[in-house]
Parts: sequence; C-alpha cells; structure tokens
Amino acid sequence: MKKINLYDENDFNDLHMSRFLVHDSPYFKILNFNFKGGQELPIHSHDIEGQVSIVILEGVGEFLSEDGTLPAKAGDVLVSDISEPHGIKARTDMRVLATIAPPI
Amino acid sequence: MKKINLYDENDFNDLHMSRFLVHDSPYFKILNFNFKGGQELPIHSHDIEGQVSIVILEGVGEFLSEDGTLPAKAGDVLVSDISEPHGIKARTDMRVLATIAPPI
Repeated sequence: MKKINLYDENDFNDLHMSRFLVHDSPYFKILNFNFKGGQELPIHSHDIEGQVSIVILEGVGEFLSEDGTLPAKAGDVLVSDISEPHGIKARTDMRVLATIAPPI
Repeated sequence: MKKINLYDENDFNDLHMSRFLVHDSPYFKILNFNFKGGQELPIHSHDIEGQVSIVILEGVGEFLSEDGTLPAKAGDVLVSDISEPHGIKARTDMRVLATIAPPI
C-alpha cells in the first residue's frame, strides 16, 4: 500500500506539460499530467491491446480524437482503447490522471 | 472512446455510500463512490492477483488498513494490492474514484 498526493508531487511548467509517474506495476501504469492553459498532449495511439482512462481533476480543455474534439472539464472520465488515437489540449491550467492497463 | 462526467452521473445518498459503475472491460473496472461525511467503505480484501488505485477527487477522510488509518484528501492516490485489506471512511462529503486491474 502506498499513498502519494498529486498536488504535493507535481507542479506546472511554463515550457511544456509536466509529467509525473505515480505508479507502475504489472497491472497498470498511472501518470499525472499538468498542463498550463494552451499546452497539449498531441493526439497519439499505440498498436497494442488495452485501454486508458483519463480523469480531469481540475481545469477545462478538450479531449482530442480523430473525429474532432470533446469538451473536457473536472469530473470527466474518458476511456479509450490505447490503439484509438487520443490526446488532450488545455484551455485553462489542467490536472489530469491517466491510467493505462495493461501498462505500456 | 466514451466520456462520462462523475458530477452529472452520481450524487450523494443520506443513507449509504453511493456507488456508480463508470466502466468495466477486460482491462480494468472503474467505480465512483460518493460518501457523505461519516459514511464508509469498510475494510475488505479479495484473495486474488491485482491492484486497486483510489483517487480522492473531493473531501477529507481516512484510508483504512490493518495497520491503522492514513489521512485522505483531494489529490491523494492510494495504490493497494487487492489482497491487502483496505477501506475508506469519509470525514466530510467525499468523491472517490477506484480503478481495479484486472477487473474483479
């Protein structure tokens, strides 16, 4: 059992998205991304089995897909196949938690 | 790709913890629990392989373990083996997201 606090462990970076590895195990990988308004994780995909969940903890922005964008706000949970192109763009400062299973 | 908003989909219940199934797939199960202050998910475990992550989205309380309690607040992520006894008790109204991999 381990506990970390995202607000204590990860901050924002004016130059690029700030990435923090929360946990990595045979079962899942958990990553925290903090975006300043305007920063993004460009649309990407991996040709493997599995899914990713993306939880918006704070802020407002867009989920990116090949079909366009979906609004993203606190409390949103997006689930995507890892093989399906996905990304995020922040409009305000945004904290996001991504869980990938099985881990990449 | 699917998106849900936890604040829209799940509310609080005065009588007991409010449970909402966000997602279930071969890769992980995602559950949202809302607790009114004083409500709890009692300490429990399952004798199987896998891990659970518990993210505190809102509120204050305690993570429960066999060794005692750990304070829980917004931004905390707890990771536990599913086989290791774990639980949650809310002090204030609390929103929690649990991800179980592989799904139970």
